[in-house]
Amino acid sequence: MSKQVGQSKIRVDAFDKATGRAKYTDDLCGKDALVVRLVHSTIAHGLVKSIDTAAASAVEGVVKILTCFDVPNIPFPTAGHPWSTDPHHQDVADRLLMNRHVRYYGDEVAAVVAENEIAAAQAARLVKVEYEEYPFVLDPQEAMQPGAPLIHGDHPGNILGHGELRIGDYEKAIQEPGLIKVEGWYDTPTVQHCHIENHVCFAQMEGGGRITVVTSTQIPHIIRRVVGQALGIPWGKVRIIKPYIGGGFGNKQDALYEPLCAWLCTQVGGRTVKIDCSREETFVSNRVRHAIRTHIISWVRPDGTFAARKIECFSNQGAYASHGHGVTAKGFNAFPQLYPCPNITGDAYTVYTNMPAAGAMRGYGIPQAMWAGESHLDDVAKALGRNPVEYRRQVVMPVGYRDEFSKNENYFDTFNQVMDKGMEAIGYQEKWEAYQHQTGPVRRGVGMALFWYNTAVWPISLESSSCRMVLNQDGSIQVQTGETEIGQGCDTAYAQMAADAVGIPFEDVHIVSTQDTDVTPFGLGAYASRQTYIGGFSIRQTGQMLKERILTYAVELTRQPRANLDLIDGKIVRVSDGRELMGLGELATEALYSLEHSQHITAESTYQIKNNAYSFGCTFAEVEVDIPMCKVKLLNIVNVHDCGNLINPALAEAQVHGGMSMGIGFGLSEELKFDPKTGRPLNNNLLDYKLSTFMDHPNLQALFVENPEPTSPYGTKALGEPPACSPAPAIRNAVLQATGVAVDRAPMTPHVLFAAFREAGLL
Amino acid sequence: MSKQVGQSKIRVDAFDKATGRAKYTDDLCGKDALVVRLVHSTIAHGLVKSIDTAAASAVEGVVKILTCFDVPNIPFPTAGHPWSTDPHHQDVADRLLMNRHVRYYGDEVAAVVAENEIAAAQAARLVKVEYEEYPFVLDPQEAMQPGAPLIHGDHPGNILGHGELRIGDYEKAIQEPGLIKVEGWYDTPTVQHCHIENHVCFAQMEGGGRITVVTSTQIPHIIRRVVGQALGIPWGKVRIIKPYIGGGFGNKQDALYEPLCAWLCTQVGGRTVKIDCSREETFVSNRVRHAIRTHIISWVRPDGTFAARKIECFSNQGAYASHGHGVTAKGFNAFPQLYPCPNITGDAYTVYTNMPAAGAMRGYGIPQAMWAGESHLDDVAKALGRNPVEYRRQVVMPVGYRDEFSKNENYFDTFNQVMDKGMEAIGYQEKWEAYQHQTGPVRRGVGMALFWYNTAVWPISLESSSCRMVLNQDGSIQVQTGETEIGQGCDTAYAQMAADAVGIPFEDVHIVSTQDTDVTPFGLGAYASRQTYIGGFSIRQTGQMLKERILTYAVELTRQPRANLDLIDGKIVRVSDGRELMGLGELATEALYSLEHSQHITAESTYQIKNNAYSFGCTFAEVEVDIPMCKVKLLNIVNVHDCGNLINPALAEAQVHGGMSMGIGFGLSEELKFDPKTGRPLNNNLLDYKLSTFMDHPNLQALFVENPEPTSPYGTKALGEPPACSPAPAIRNAVLQATGVAVDRAPMTPHVLFAAFREAGLL
Repeated sequence: MSKQVGQSKIRVDAFDKATGRAKYTDDLCGKDALVVRLVHSTIAHGLVKSIDTAAASAVEGVVKILTCFDVPNIPFPTAGHPWSTDPHHQDVADRLLMNRHVRYYGDEVAAVVAENEIAAAQAARLVKVEYEEYPFVLDPQEAMQPGAPLIHGDHPGNILGHGELRIGDYEKAIQEPGLIKVEGWYDTPTVQHCHIENHVCFAQMEGGGRITVVTSTQIPHIIRRVVGQALGIPWGKVRIIKPYIGGGFGNKQDALYEPLCAWLCTQVGGRTVKIDCSREETFVSNRVRHAIRTHIISWVRPDGTFAARKIECFSNQGAYASHGHGVTAKGFNAFPQLYPCPNITGDAYTVYTNMPAAGAMRGYGIPQAMWAGESHLDDVAKALGRNPVEYRRQVVMPVGYRDEFSKNENYFDTFNQVMDKGMEAIGYQEKWEAYQHQTGPVRRGVGMALFWYNTAVWPISLESSSCRMVLNQDGSIQVQTGETEIGQGCDTAYAQMAADAVGIPFEDVHIVSTQDTDVTPFGLGAYASRQTYIGGFSIRQTGQMLKERILTYAVELTRQPRANLDLIDGKIVRVSDGRELMGLGELATEALYSLEHSQHITAESTYQIKNNAYSFGCTFAEVEVDIPMCKVKLLNIVNVHDCGNLINPALAEAQVHGGMSMGIGFGLSEELKFDPKTGRPLNNNLLDYKLSTFMDHPNLQALFVENPEPTSPYGTKALGEPPACSPAPAIRNAVLQATGVAVDRAPMTPHVLFAAFREAGLL
Repeated sequence: MSKQVGQSKIRVDAFDKATGRAKYTDDLCGKDALVVRLVHSTIAHGLVKSIDTAAASAVEGVVKILTCFDVPNIPFPTAGHPWSTDPHHQDVADRLLMNRHVRYYGDEVAAVVAENEIAAAQAARLVKVEYEEYPFVLDPQEAMQPGAPLIHGDHPGNILGHGELRIGDYEKAIQEPGLIKVEGWYDTPTVQHCHIENHVCFAQMEGGGRITVVTSTQIPHIIRRVVGQALGIPWGKVRIIKPYIGGGFGNKQDALYEPLCAWLCTQVGGRTVKIDCSREETFVSNRVRHAIRTHIISWVRPDGTFAARKIECFSNQGAYASHGHGVTAKGFNAFPQLYPCPNITGDAYTVYTNMPAAGAMRGYGIPQAMWAGESHLDDVAKALGRNPVEYRRQVVMPVGYRDEFSKNENYFDTFNQVMDKGMEAIGYQEKWEAYQHQTGPVRRGVGMALFWYNTAVWPISLESSSCRMVLNQDGSIQVQTGETEIGQGCDTAYAQMAADAVGIPFEDVHIVSTQDTDVTPFGLGAYASRQTYIGGFSIRQTGQMLKERILTYAVELTRQPRANLDLIDGKIVRVSDGRELMGLGELATEALYSLEHSQHITAESTYQIKNNAYSFGCTFAEVEVDIPMCKVKLLNIVNVHDCGNLINPALAEAQVHGGMSMGIGFGLSEELKFDPKTGRPLNNNLLDYKLSTFMDHPNLQALFVENPEPTSPYGTKALGEPPACSPAPAIRNAVLQATGVAVDRAPMTPHVLFAAFREAGLL
């Protein structure tokens, strides 16, 4: 069989997307849809006392104005997690469709439904809202203080989640004589995903009170559940359709405006109602990445071994729970694994503030954790006078390490392999030596950072995937899964997997890219870098079922025993002599139209995954720092990944490029800023928010170490998020080598560097 | 279990359709679609010598003009029949996408693709076509004559199909002394279906050269095959989507403009291209009902028994084969079954003419056959001096009659039961007697007609049906079938069947009304009155599979043995004590989200049907005939049907009302007329074409005899087409009683009656 997996096939959606034929949510919205404009809070914290809609209602074309006084009193969760039937494991339900108690600048207080965009916008401006203002707090550590304003009444100290790590005896261990103490505080910013397509959705009612929502989401089956919860209707009354989407990066792994849109639809007699976010709304009223402040103390022996370590995380949740503590927890739990130590104490807090709600974003806590942990590792190496790479080889997770909770195992010598490859690619050793002891205003440095990542969400949550395959008369097949194409290329990877599983050419696989919860087999969507790993299980299983059914039918037509038949490259082959007995198209046509035995050959199955897999790698970066200008120029950067076997090397490389770009922005330029006096967002647009772009990047080099993942049907594991995890600390560590200054906050903008260089006496 | 089948549930699509929420093809077409206007032939027969598109191309907004000189030379069939892998059993492939050799006034010669409707229409008018004119022929018997113009070169005498009936020895039998010879010629008109929604479709290309056509069709899976054939591409490259449609009645059981639309799309880089028929085009350039002229001679003994019978049919196929001889054959083959006779000779000819192509239309040859046969039966009764009802009781198909080809059997005394019921409802006996021997200008009469019908197409063609069911977390299900809702209400009937098969409330069944050949299980669509009969097999089978999977999972959750569990009205019930152990929603939710055993419970199966069923009934009509005005007023009409068990009595009644309306128009007013000098259609619009309407009807009474069909899973059989089969001859026979005039042609317009009454000496 010609193996499709492992080849750089052209994306199955390449031509549609390049020619503009691909249909996105707004393309599918009917001409007669009503348009919604939302009225957002203009204070950071307070109570809506009254809303005057008289002037707004008078605008011609306004159909209805609904406010926070009208919505049902049903708190609902928004996080795109698999549902749990265990109440203790369910996401926090702390949202209403619109809020009288507004908790951040941008909270929804009213919605104007109008015949057209202009009327909606005009009327939204005329809605008059009277507030009672409350004190507000933007910083998580301040929010934990006694006397801080309580954002949700039932969370003392505004603490949404608190995790603890207690390994060995930290207090006793730090008494050991001769230990070197290395301590640091590491801050990461609030950033936004900045996918190309803003969130957009439209809802319409169908027979029997059913509601269809077409939406730009990563998680259609989960959105169905959340819409049902938010509206208080049975989940089967909700149908979600997910067409092509223009990126998500985790922002769309959350129920955004789908519940509100669905409810508004019910308020206008089931007519089509569309909510189309502006970029300004996307920045503030969707989700952001958790800004996390991490405090690490390492007690190190002169030989480099860790005697004891302490970690504290303060994660800025913003106004609503969304993914909540799970994000902080993922990074927090990486800490004892990446650099094992017998004595660890740790506390992680996820804290409500009057900021936009933080949710999932590519890396899910790991970019923040790596910024802290890998910056700190270089600080430790520096304190020990050791080379950072050489030092990491000593202390990093050893081969054979196994995490007893996840059952993940470090099967290969991945860390040394990726570091070797990265060092060679960037010329680390020579540069490291050449850049020691520089003087002058412009200096260079090389730095690196490792990352730890685990694939998918088992055993914390459900991992299951379903797949259905439908054989056509020409021998081609359709493949349906609940896992979603969100631009990452999974449809192409799935087509390759399906071709191999069934035994047909790649071109004969038609992936049904649109998920429709009425007919798409249940799957959880795109997140946790799970697509190729999780989807692979059900695609292989279902492909084998389909193949078995085809060959069973082939027995009837060829009169050969099943054991002597195989399906290879779309041909029914007699195994004993390799003769091609018939084409699959001929078989499919005969099977469908046979007057003796007509059968539409299809297959469908669910696979529940009870495995998980580590996915490791590193970044090497080379920078030039202009100290008087407080400016970092990135000269070279290389990411090295072990994501198991590559399904499609070209797509894998593209994945890494995108993640590196995001990591570079995280390290150097991106930060969503707020006015400390009002909580108002200051740069929620693509002009003032300094997204990392092509012009800021050197050549982005992506390299791979392909250690096949033994638990995975195609030997693959996480690649979607990992590339974004280590670039920022690698750049930070390169700046450290260049200047000797250990910068403690991302992004390393001129403002941050000015303060740091000043403090270090360089300016 | 509460039985849903048999109840008059409200249509599942009632609210969507009544409120305008239901989405039809044009509602789904994108805002940026290109619009097509077709240029039709303005001669009845000839050759396109040249087409000048210069002026048309200059119209602003015109994107492309394609002509009959551009299309691929791939003849294709259009009939909505199941494909056969036996070449002898395939439909005649006699069409190109557009035609240089034009064969009727209205044939397609060019297509203008433009940015908007106005540009397309303007340019279409500017396309200059130069023809070489050929002689043409509109009448089938004339077309069979030597020297008649040959419309398709390879069919001598223009004969597309010829069927023969030879039973016993006709020539010998007619020698029997004392026989009474009754002879008649019976003509039916060319009529059109006049569904509310004209045919409309749009096509767009997707990745890998795949083409999606959204279309107003009855037969999406068949259309996929025909589009593939017409374009010469693998069938799996074609995807057909069928949304709600506004009626079809057989016109949309044909590939209409889907192949041309798909091809035009390929000629403009895959952009969306829409063809939206005007009513004028629908009348002429879609399909019409075969006008059939039937010649019958009966040789009857004085005791009423048939000694021998002869039948000849001349069916007007028009310019292209479409459903071809199958339509004539169905009625032709009913002849020896409805009134068995030991000596029959018959010939049926389906003949090409220069008329619009005739295709499928409600009744598929049976309305024409009943017009001839039931008119003739009354002529025989009259010749014998017998009452028509009483006479029919003597000669009609007896109980226990079995057709050896179809294996159909007349299990019950249906004919006498329906006649008894009809007689009583209309007060036949008293009226028949009262209306004998009338004089004066205005006279009344009662008449009746039986009909013969068989359900579905087995054993002539494939009958199979597939179904898929998907369980939601709330215990509701989606049901997908390839059989289509075309306004007849099958979605509602299917929901009732599925509810009973699975054991859940009717409200918990969501029928997926839209067929999408990429994901909908294979089914053949709506025709041959097959929906409830054929669909029932796969719905019951799949429902039982789903129920079994649910109860198998219930064993895990309830710890009861499978044999002690049942699913009743959406509850898992312990059989031994009737206790409700859990709701289906609870089970579905647990099954989906279980961390132990997660399963998305679905079921899918194909059922191949190798049975068929007779479906009989009759019409009784009472008329008042104004002889000087040559006008028939219908006073009373009642249809009585044995379609087995009624799935939904209210919907069944509505079906019958619609069919009766069509039958009344067929008998009294509807005829598409053509200029004999040019072949030009004269009344192809709803003003001049006299469609029977509400105002022409008395109360339409529908009665039923429910003899359960033993081969059918729900005891049901054909009802969709039968109501249209017998009204016209019943009215004709009532006119016969009133006036003594045996009218020989439908519709009985004043023009026809004037000639008949003149000939009979009444005027």
